[in-house]
Amino acid sequence: MTLHTGRHFLQIPGPTNVPDQVLRAMARPTIDHRGPEFAALTRRLLAELQPVFGTTGPVVVYPASGTGAWEAALVNTLSPGDRVLCFETGHFATLWRAMAEQLGLDVDFVPGDWRHGADPARLAERLAADAGHTIKAVCVVHNETSTGVTSRIPALRRALDEAGHPALLLVDTISSLASIDYRHDAWGVDVTVAGSQKGLMLPPGLSFNAVSQKALAASRTAGLPRSFWDWRPILEANEHGAFPYTPATNLLYGLDEALAMLRAEGLPAVFARHARHARATRAAVRAWGLEVLCADEREHSGSLTAVLLPDGHDADKVREIVLERFDMSLGAGLGRLTGRIFRIGHLGHLGDLTLAGTLAGVQLGLQLAGVPVSPDGLGAALDVLREEGEGA
Amino acid sequence: MTLHTGRHFLQIPGPTNVPDQVLRAMARPTIDHRGPEFAALTRRLLAELQPVFGTTGPVVVYPASGTGAWEAALVNTLSPGDRVLCFETGHFATLWRAMAEQLGLDVDFVPGDWRHGADPARLAERLAADAGHTIKAVCVVHNETSTGVTSRIPALRRALDEAGHPALLLVDTISSLASIDYRHDAWGVDVTVAGSQKGLMLPPGLSFNAVSQKALAASRTAGLPRSFWDWRPILEANEHGAFPYTPATNLLYGLDEALAMLRAEGLPAVFARHARHARATRAAVRAWGLEVLCADEREHSGSLTAVLLPDGHDADKVREIVLERFDMSLGAGLGRLTGRIFRIGHLGHLGDLTLAGTLAGVQLGLQLAGVPVSPDGLGAALDVLREEGEGA
Amino acid sequence: MTLHTGRHFLQIPGPTNVPDQVLRAMARPTIDHRGPEFAALTRRLLAELQPVFGTTGPVVVYPASGTGAWEAALVNTLSPGDRVLCFETGHFATLWRAMAEQLGLDVDFVPGDWRHGADPARLAERLAADAGHTIKAVCVVHNETSTGVTSRIPALRRALDEAGHPALLLVDTISSLASIDYRHDAWGVDVTVAGSQKGLMLPPGLSFNAVSQKALAASRTAGLPRSFWDWRPILEANEHGAFPYTPATNLLYGLDEALAMLRAEGLPAVFARHARHARATRAAVRAWGLEVLCADEREHSGSLTAVLLPDGHDADKVREIVLERFDMSLGAGLGRLTGRIFRIGHLGHLGDLTLAGTLAGVQLGLQLAGVPVSPDGLGAALDVLREEGEGA
Amino acid sequence: MTLHTGRHFLQIPGPTNVPDQVLRAMARPTIDHRGPEFAALTRRLLAELQPVFGTTGPVVVYPASGTGAWEAALVNTLSPGDRVLCFETGHFATLWRAMAEQLGLDVDFVPGDWRHGADPARLAERLAADAGHTIKAVCVVHNETSTGVTSRIPALRRALDEAGHPALLLVDTISSLASIDYRHDAWGVDVTVAGSQKGLMLPPGLSFNAVSQKALAASRTAGLPRSFWDWRPILEANEHGAFPYTPATNLLYGLDEALAMLRAEGLPAVFARHARHARATRAAVRAWGLEVLCADEREHSGSLTAVLLPDGHDADKVREIVLERFDMSLGAGLGRLTGRIFRIGHLGHLGDLTLAGTLAGVQLGLQLAGVPVSPDGLGAALDVLREEGEGA
Repeated sequence: MTLHTGRHFLQIPGPTNVPDQVLRAMARPTIDHRGPEFAALTRRLLAELQPVFGTTGPVVVYPASGTGAWEAALVNTLSPGDRVLCFETGHFATLWRAMAEQLGLDVDFVPGDWRHGADPARLAERLAADAGHTIKAVCVVHNETSTGVTSRIPALRRALDEAGHPALLLVDTISSLASIDYRHDAWGVDVTVAGSQKGLMLPPGLSFNAVSQKALAASRTAGLPRSFWDWRPILEANEHGAFPYTPATNLLYGLDEALAMLRAEGLPAVFARHARHARATRAAVRAWGLEVLCADEREHSGSLTAVLLPDGHDADKVREIVLERFDMSLGAGLGRLTGRIFRIGHLGHLGDLTLAGTLAGVQLGLQLAGVPVSPDGLGAALDVLREEGEGA
Repeated sequence: MTLHTGRHFLQIPGPTNVPDQVLRAMARPTIDHRGPEFAALTRRLLAELQPVFGTTGPVVVYPASGTGAWEAALVNTLSPGDRVLCFETGHFATLWRAMAEQLGLDVDFVPGDWRHGADPARLAERLAADAGHTIKAVCVVHNETSTGVTSRIPALRRALDEAGHPALLLVDTISSLASIDYRHDAWGVDVTVAGSQKGLMLPPGLSFNAVSQKALAASRTAGLPRSFWDWRPILEANEHGAFPYTPATNLLYGLDEALAMLRAEGLPAVFARHARHARATRAAVRAWGLEVLCADEREHSGSLTAVLLPDGHDADKVREIVLERFDMSLGAGLGRLTGRIFRIGHLGHLGDLTLAGTLAGVQLGLQLAGVPVSPDGLGAALDVLREEGEGA
Repeated sequence: MTLHTGRHFLQIPGPTNVPDQVLRAMARPTIDHRGPEFAALTRRLLAELQPVFGTTGPVVVYPASGTGAWEAALVNTLSPGDRVLCFETGHFATLWRAMAEQLGLDVDFVPGDWRHGADPARLAERLAADAGHTIKAVCVVHNETSTGVTSRIPALRRALDEAGHPALLLVDTISSLASIDYRHDAWGVDVTVAGSQKGLMLPPGLSFNAVSQKALAASRTAGLPRSFWDWRPILEANEHGAFPYTPATNLLYGLDEALAMLRAEGLPAVFARHARHARATRAAVRAWGLEVLCADEREHSGSLTAVLLPDGHDADKVREIVLERFDMSLGAGLGRLTGRIFRIGHLGHLGDLTLAGTLAGVQLGLQLAGVPVSPDGLGAALDVLREEGEGA
Repeated sequence: MTLHTGRHFLQIPGPTNVPDQVLRAMARPTIDHRGPEFAALTRRLLAELQPVFGTTGPVVVYPASGTGAWEAALVNTLSPGDRVLCFETGHFATLWRAMAEQLGLDVDFVPGDWRHGADPARLAERLAADAGHTIKAVCVVHNETSTGVTSRIPALRRALDEAGHPALLLVDTISSLASIDYRHDAWGVDVTVAGSQKGLMLPPGLSFNAVSQKALAASRTAGLPRSFWDWRPILEANEHGAFPYTPATNLLYGLDEALAMLRAEGLPAVFARHARHARATRAAVRAWGLEVLCADEREHSGSLTAVLLPDGHDADKVREIVLERFDMSLGAGLGRLTGRIFRIGHLGHLGDLTLAGTLAGVQLGLQLAGVPVSPDGLGAALDVLREEGEGA
């Protein structure tokens, strides 16, 4: 590898750039997880997490990465053989389906083209066809990290409501929480799955389940075996500012700091900042003459943009050049998109000039890789950045 | 809480004092977990973990706390309804049994008095009585963190061998790994369970399974549902220096540093240091006129010492005084030992003078709590510390 | 060098143990020293330094170590050939004299035995003999870091007042500020010299002059050449939250944090803590059967204790053993005390148990070096520590 | 102030962006400055500093900011009333002259227009006119931080040699060392003055004098009073890996890390990187239609670029907008250039994409401030960055 000087540009769609103050907070000495200082920290964190999820209900914190929180959502609410409806929005939706199958669930997978979100109309059809209410849960990835497409959760909720269908709504917000507007309670979500390493601006290692009363009720009868992921002992211990097993203390320190930063900026400003950066990025992509993967204007992601290359061009080659020459990491195409797209992460702790540097690096990389692009991309992004942001 | 000046004494038996250099390593910027720099880190870590476990086989790393690695050991090797033999050595053995039951296993629990380790003779009896080999696994906590008693794994292995019994041997080394002599391969252990926050000198958040070939073979037919904990996709991804889901990057940075520190000191010196500190601590306890909980000289823990108080004295009161007056955290009695003992952690990143300060704080706390003790305890410990350690 | 595990014991009388939170504060990114954020920091620091010096007048901050602040005190107030009165209280007083001579001042050096502070009676004699007021300044080291003797500044001030002598009073508080009661204004000090690396709990690299109106007036006519140390441009720039040359930004971050810690504890509690730790240390020294160097009960230092060894024993040998075996740094005898004493620093960020560990290490080192000592020293210190501190 | 998210862009010409690893190195616990570990550090640093200055002679390290090292260069080599020749290259040259005058030297100041470096022809004239060798030293700022003009030291040296004039050559490399090619020995410099906070990638607080044998000889007879800055006791103590007064330990830790980074990159690559970034910046300035302050193609600075605004436009307004809207600090015009220029720092720890982001921010700020500029500036810079650097 070439030696680079200056700060690495980590512009994958997560893990994101961890702010210095969060890294420093994580470097505090580990304390007794059964002592009074830790109990006070736990209580504060649990209270402060709620508004980030848009809930007044419990948020369960796992000392584990986000995939674990997926498993938790399933094993706490479902029983072996239960039927769940999943939408093929991309790579991560596909992985979640595979997990559900491995855990012994019966997955009904609505096929997709990886350029659209979960379709409320298709959901309505499936629910209408399920008069017997055999579907126990609907699993949706809010923001597909592999495609940069954001499913419209309120519309999906509406489909459930209109069908009068009792299925639980389980939503993966791993790459949307604290980046794209999201409301657990208002949107009637039953389990929200999240992780630490994206909008929450932490390293990976913490994950979350926000849990509705309906989900809690389901957990009382759910038959999948569970121990580590079991909500009950966690919620009980949380009452006393504790956890049933050793929590990831230093990541919780970081979470404390990151939540303070989000409060200081304010969630509406956080969402507006992400949306503005996404707009600037799409402006660049289009001015380059390239195509944004997301095919529905209503579903553009605020946290990442997937860029489709013209046939005959290798997206991984672009990424390799960008890494080697400009010390920037971009996201690869995953699964069926391998080599066809690259992904620009613009979420988390990110300012205008770092985004400008990012898009400069992409433009240079595209040119060096021989992809035919107009040099006007970066300028088009700057035109957006010149406009004042809502938070500014 | 009283404001204290100076460094907190974290003398619980884990999480332990994380060395400054490990905390600083963890404060490095998070990198792309799919990039070449991360792959090199992963490969190095996986290779360097092996000698710490005393194995040449695979070590699986989870972005999760130690309890998760217990669950992993069970779900990867066993099927619903399988019979497992557990030993009641203390609180954590009891929790592990509860987990096994929750996961649908049939637990045969050998009762114990919480002052002895797993008894090889009792194991031999149970195996002899199991001519049909219905016992699929024997679960032992190597070092009971709740009691300071270290079970003799080689003797237990011998019992299995002498019985010609095919049961798997699953061992929890959460509070012994990298503190007390332990040898996964040489002792014929099938799954070794470990965590980051004790002898490995890291914060909590990583856990481990060292896996024998026999365990791997068992995993191919094991019927418990599993996804997050499944060894197979992890071992496959590890081949390429990757993980199947987002690893806990910054904790891995810390692990890299901690492993370097262990290599620099050398495992034999690490074990000798812990044994010497444990001897000094027991010398203090006895000179105070108090009783060490561990009742078998062969089973004293090198990583912690549980101190039994005379009837009528409340161990939690002592701990409270020590925390309030001297800013030191000691371990509480757990489960049936609540209030009757306190535990002194002397594992991880610990030098002679911090141990001396620790024992000074315990002595002062005992006196202030009105526990009748001789003031000679600390001096007795110093007599041990005056002798040169093996590593010195 | 032997490899040690656990935290090093830095028990020299400065630099002292820098609290983790101060180290982390210093790791914040450097900012523009001409920008608004820096100006706000400067203004806050300058205001918050005043109570630490016990002054409502200006405190000048140098991006330099303490020796520089000595030079500043001299060159800002004196002219070539000016007569200054210095007291031989120990090594640092001797160095200060040498500096004054090198700068072209005429030093009247009152001899001393390095076991007593500056004698108010001797000062009175000298002043009485100076009817012509040829003495322009009296230079005193408040706490002699080389001996552990604290001169009684109020009594010296009284001598000046009673003589009606106009000499400036320049006081070095490098190892007393924020450890031992000190009051620039109330005691009529004209220039207080201080450094960052002792009671202020910072690394070395910042130093200070607190300046009286009388000293400011003197600076207008003082003829020693000066540029870097000149108060005037600094005080002018400080008006606008700036410095005339690049300040040591990251040390100022640490100062901000350290001042917050001092405010949280409260200066009276800080002084009481130091006095209590000094009492415990002297109790140990005497119970060992050794002599404290300081020969006047009124002058014992709150921040360090110098221990005199019996003839025929080498204090540096004790220090070497303590460093090698117990990973603790003690202060050496300096100048004429080389080999005859060692110094125990007990100032700055220090708690009871670290002091106990320190004294345990000293006791073990003395024993291993063959110095005949009673083993009761540590116990005598614990008897003091068992009593509640004022701040507790 | 507006709250910003993401990393601040510190693009003043120093202090520069301190690399994370340097900040972390500085967060190591302070150690005994008289112990063996510190002595080893000192010896290593002193040896490793030499190649950075291009010298095999001594480098004196001060625990003080760069201005102090200016003073040190003067007081160690000159006597009261000595005549020194200074060149008015800009603000810092002017300040240096003021210092010399304050210290009692007789300064001959060659006037300049702040757009050119020190002129070798003018030097030759002055030397030719000084048959009596009354000029004792020639003081030159290698890279004028206030103007972005780099004086040609070899040509100045040649003028001295050709005149056979014995004056000492004192050179300020505060903003050029480790950024722009510089050779203390090869260029016959007598004292090189440097600071920590620019090319050395450290916070402010350390400064340096590289000293020729001729300068050392001069110091033996130099009559300016000195103590703190005196080379002699420092060089003597350095022999034993020590310093005569408390060194700035934690900044030295950072220096150790920064020197390792410079060695890894290699000085030629470091210089090439800076030159390439300077070229890209000038390309942007010219494409915007603005003027670079430096008026001589041979004297463009590799570490910063000063941009002249058209009449009627306020450079400070541009800086204010850039800070407020884009969270970037740019350098102000100093002295007579106030409001007429702003300065872009592109030195120290800097990569291509951060430079691109920097220039994007400048372009946006110029546009928002209503300065008439072409939008082609950033693209012109990218054209330069697209070319492979020498180090790539």
